[in-house]
Amino acid sequence: MYQATERTRVRRLPERAAYDRDTVHAILDEGFVCHVGFAIDGQPYVIPTGYARAGGTLYLHGSTGSRLGLRPGMPVCVTVTLLDGIVLARSAFHHSMNYRSVTVLGRTRLVTDPWEKDAALRAFVEHVVPGRSADVRGADRKELVATAVLAVPLEEVSAKVRRGDPKDEEEDYALPVWSGVLPLALVPGGPVPDARLDPAVPVPSYVAGWDRRGRAAR
Amino acid sequence: MYQATERTRVRRLPERAAYDRDTVHAILDEGFVCHVGFAIDGQPYVIPTGYARAGGTLYLHGSTGSRLGLRPGMPVCVTVTLLDGIVLARSAFHHSMNYRSVTVLGRTRLVTDPWEKDAALRAFVEHVVPGRSADVRGADRKELVATAVLAVPLEEVSAKVRRGDPKDEEEDYALPVWSGVLPLALVPGGPVPDARLDPAVPVPSYVAGWDRRGRAAR
Repeated sequence: MYQATERTRVRRLPERAAYDRDTVHAILDEGFVCHVGFAIDGQPYVIPTGYARAGGTLYLHGSTGSRLGLRPGMPVCVTVTLLDGIVLARSAFHHSMNYRSVTVLGRTRLVTDPWEKDAALRAFVEHVVPGRSADVRGADRKELVATAVLAVPLEEVSAKVRRGDPKDEEEDYALPVWSGVLPLALVPGGPVPDARLDPAVPVPSYVAGWDRRGRAAR
Repeated sequence: MYQATERTRVRRLPERAAYDRDTVHAILDEGFVCHVGFAIDGQPYVIPTGYARAGGTLYLHGSTGSRLGLRPGMPVCVTVTLLDGIVLARSAFHHSMNYRSVTVLGRTRLVTDPWEKDAALRAFVEHVVPGRSADVRGADRKELVATAVLAVPLEEVSAKVRRGDPKDEEEDYALPVWSGVLPLALVPGGPVPDARLDPAVPVPSYVAGWDRRGRAAR
């Protein structure tokens, strides 16, 4: 269990909250794009970016040289959201979404150890497409220097999950309005080869069989 | 065109930036979950929530009564991200995502005018499932009072778009590694009726035919 803190305790609809490691890690492992929030002079910024989890640490790409970028030592909020469906209630008010989300509060640490950095760069690829990192050219010295990797410890963490049917007002159940859930999933289409790819190179099984759903169950 | 400001000008990979209204509005109209960032005592928070666009205004649900919630008059950053594909390069370093995102900077305004509030609540439903709002019971007085609606003007706005093939180092094109794009889309499954729904109520066409892709083209 992650310890709920004053800052991570879910106040709105607390019945949707979860703090156990299995739930949190399953969401982080199924997702692969997060939204990172940071503030500069009181103005918040939220940027979408890739991430990877390794044990109790979340790794993020940091930008280098950007005044408005994500920097080491900053307080951040990293949120990962998986959208599972649209909840259609009998009243406008009770329309909702089914989703699973994780929020991580913490401070970014610049990864300077070359072994940790190399492992994080490998994890960025491996987290999104398991099996891929063994096939590609790894980062060379120049690329390693050009990439800033930031770590956020998984310490102040909470999850929120909504699933299942709409919850309508008792008197609305008699309305002759279709209600239920329209499930949604992020689904892969057919792989599109690079224009310069040798057509003799086959599509790898980790691309052809890529399916994010149920990743956590492996 | 939205005027790029010191705060919205895209510095990292500026060739991906767009500031024209058509691009920005198309992304906002295809998406329906945003990530809202706000800061309290220097600590950023990022929460996923529904939204609707009406003309030059973005409407958000505000929470009521939560100390750590989104409040009127706060500087916020609202980011909407559509994920279009995984970009598989020949080197780990050049792996990327195809995506379209919009970032809105602004200050939240509490919607107090009853007509504007009613229209915004209707828009929340209609934005996610066009055609739905006419079928459901609208908000009553109690529900109107219980819901805080926040408006953010579309003034400081920028978009970022990446599409197409990976960009590899010239010397890596000779590597016998599959490269290209694995397209991704948020796809609906079959509608799941509410456990208490009268089976005689048919699935509406706006549910059976729900497809977010290309919504902007309508």
